[in-house]
Amino acid sequence: MKKVCILGAGSWGTALAIHLALKHYRVTLWGRPEDDIDQIKEKGENQHFLPGVKLPDRVYPETDLQKALKNTDMVVLAVPSQALRDVLGSVQPYLTTNTRLVNTAKGLELSSGLRMSQVVQEVLGAEYLPGYAVLSGPSHAEEVGRQIPTAVTVAAYNKETAFLVQNTFMSGNFRVYTNPDVSGVELGGALKNIIALATGILYGLEYGDNTAAALMTRGLAEMTRMGVAMGGDQRTFYGLSGIGDLVVTCSSQHSRNRRAGEMIGQGQTLEQTMQNIGMVVEGAYTTRVVHHLATRMNIDMPITTACYRVLYEGRNPRHEVEKLMKRQKKHEMEETVTQNIDW
Amino acid sequence: MKKVCILGAGSWGTALAIHLALKHYRVTLWGRPEDDIDQIKEKGENQHFLPGVKLPDRVYPETDLQKALKNTDMVVLAVPSQALRDVLGSVQPYLTTNTRLVNTAKGLELSSGLRMSQVVQEVLGAEYLPGYAVLSGPSHAEEVGRQIPTAVTVAAYNKETAFLVQNTFMSGNFRVYTNPDVSGVELGGALKNIIALATGILYGLEYGDNTAAALMTRGLAEMTRMGVAMGGDQRTFYGLSGIGDLVVTCSSQHSRNRRAGEMIGQGQTLEQTMQNIGMVVEGAYTTRVVHHLATRMNIDMPITTACYRVLYEGRNPRHEVEKLMKRQKKHEMEETVTQNIDW
Repeated sequence: MKKVCILGAGSWGTALAIHLALKHYRVTLWGRPEDDIDQIKEKGENQHFLPGVKLPDRVYPETDLQKALKNTDMVVLAVPSQALRDVLGSVQPYLTTNTRLVNTAKGLELSSGLRMSQVVQEVLGAEYLPGYAVLSGPSHAEEVGRQIPTAVTVAAYNKETAFLVQNTFMSGNFRVYTNPDVSGVELGGALKNIIALATGILYGLEYGDNTAAALMTRGLAEMTRMGVAMGGDQRTFYGLSGIGDLVVTCSSQHSRNRRAGEMIGQGQTLEQTMQNIGMVVEGAYTTRVVHHLATRMNIDMPITTACYRVLYEGRNPRHEVEKLMKRQKKHEMEETVTQNIDW
Repeated sequence: MKKVCILGAGSWGTALAIHLALKHYRVTLWGRPEDDIDQIKEKGENQHFLPGVKLPDRVYPETDLQKALKNTDMVVLAVPSQALRDVLGSVQPYLTTNTRLVNTAKGLELSSGLRMSQVVQEVLGAEYLPGYAVLSGPSHAEEVGRQIPTAVTVAAYNKETAFLVQNTFMSGNFRVYTNPDVSGVELGGALKNIIALATGILYGLEYGDNTAAALMTRGLAEMTRMGVAMGGDQRTFYGLSGIGDLVVTCSSQHSRNRRAGEMIGQGQTLEQTMQNIGMVVEGAYTTRVVHHLATRMNIDMPITTACYRVLYEGRNPRHEVEKLMKRQKKHEMEETVTQNIDW
């Protein structure tokens, strides 16, 4: 029986632990003591992050990192983006270059602007990259935990790693597509959270579905522009880890980023919102780092800029939306869609 | 004061009449006597199709076609796709090649498989095409009638026509982008209704947001494949009249196609659903005509095929969804997203 270790006992780590255990893997679910690991073990359920879903017998909650990683060929990195560097530092002694690392964090490192695979390279070294994969796509933990049909993308630099991860995760209710574009998949997952926050702000201000659809369309154009500039393949942004994840994050009731945006649209500050959500809102960090990157790289990202101003400069959200609507004149459509087409 | 005539007093015709009247155009809203035109005139409101929104004074409901079209430079075609040929036949005597025709019907003709501009060409002649434009995008009538910010695309063969229509419709709450790709804009608006029906079916069967997002992503790939084969520009499908309209139609409470799908997913027949909705469900017609076109053109459209089987061959929707999930294996992602990329 094969063993997988999941680092991070939040909602997504827990959902993936359940999924793999149902596929008959032996799964260690590692978390810090403050992550209620003892309670998860005792109750057989992650009542805080994934209430109502029982853990199968083959899930072993664990707080001891060395025990958790013993005899493990595959490690799933399910910690928040800003925690990845620290966690990698702690686990480094127990890894080999044969260990497959499956990252699920959808963000950029705030201090450096790095993608998660770049953080892995900095901490562990380039020799760990052939074993690295990123798993992303429209996949709310609440639904995967209940085996609701879901489709995701796995990207890896190394083909065998991609196929191994695909085989490990694939089931009748969990479809896994492979993709060689690691940068594009990592960037799609990160950038879409900014647009989801912005969409939430729109709904918080009581704009309509028409407005949100326009924002998402323009948001995808902005994500793709930045993503390609940062090394992603344009086509990836039109797949599951791009449009697919964008759609579900902007429109689903399960989305923390969307909910956080709604609260901000209703007049809460970012701090109040973070406290109310009670979990990490990746999009708030991503907005900050991408705004700075876009400024430095001279890339036009009007929605990200508006979001940054609302979150970090205390600007009025309605005023920013209005500016955005007025700014979005015909030239933007031409730039991205009808570019180089003659009448 | 300029005059615009809107043919068709359904929800969209009425919303556009209100929008243009608020821009100080004099608007004739033409409908058949059975469309309750007298009641609309009397109450100053289209209680059946757009309840709760008062018509401005400058909207003139009218049943006499000749009166309605008198001294009109711009005619908005807001009738269902299957009615367009008949309506064009009736209005032909009152049109000149200087009349601008703005089509808003999002469908294909069932008997011929033709796009709306091709129907115009057949009925009126090619000399009417320079004055033809199509207005499309994520724009629920219920929201436009209430001046909720909305962005749409206008495509025309002739640049001046596109700019004239843009200027006529553009306002602070209604952004209009121009696009020279008439085929792509017409096809995006039509094809997305199939995917919206399919998404509704998924929700009717109580699948989740993850499942719907995967379907929409694969649906966009299928729309684009067919759209390009029928002469559209791929980039158009990633804009407002493609992704934008797809997102709003699949996820909004206002969408008739989505609601019809839900009823079918819950076990109703197509006939029962059509009766319950009480308005035209364009997607049901589009599914039929596109399924036949795809078969003839040998284009792979698995979601459309599944939809056709459920709607017209009485197949079990859950069974078709499961087949689709199993069919969607890794090769499909490779085909559209990772095509020609080497590891």
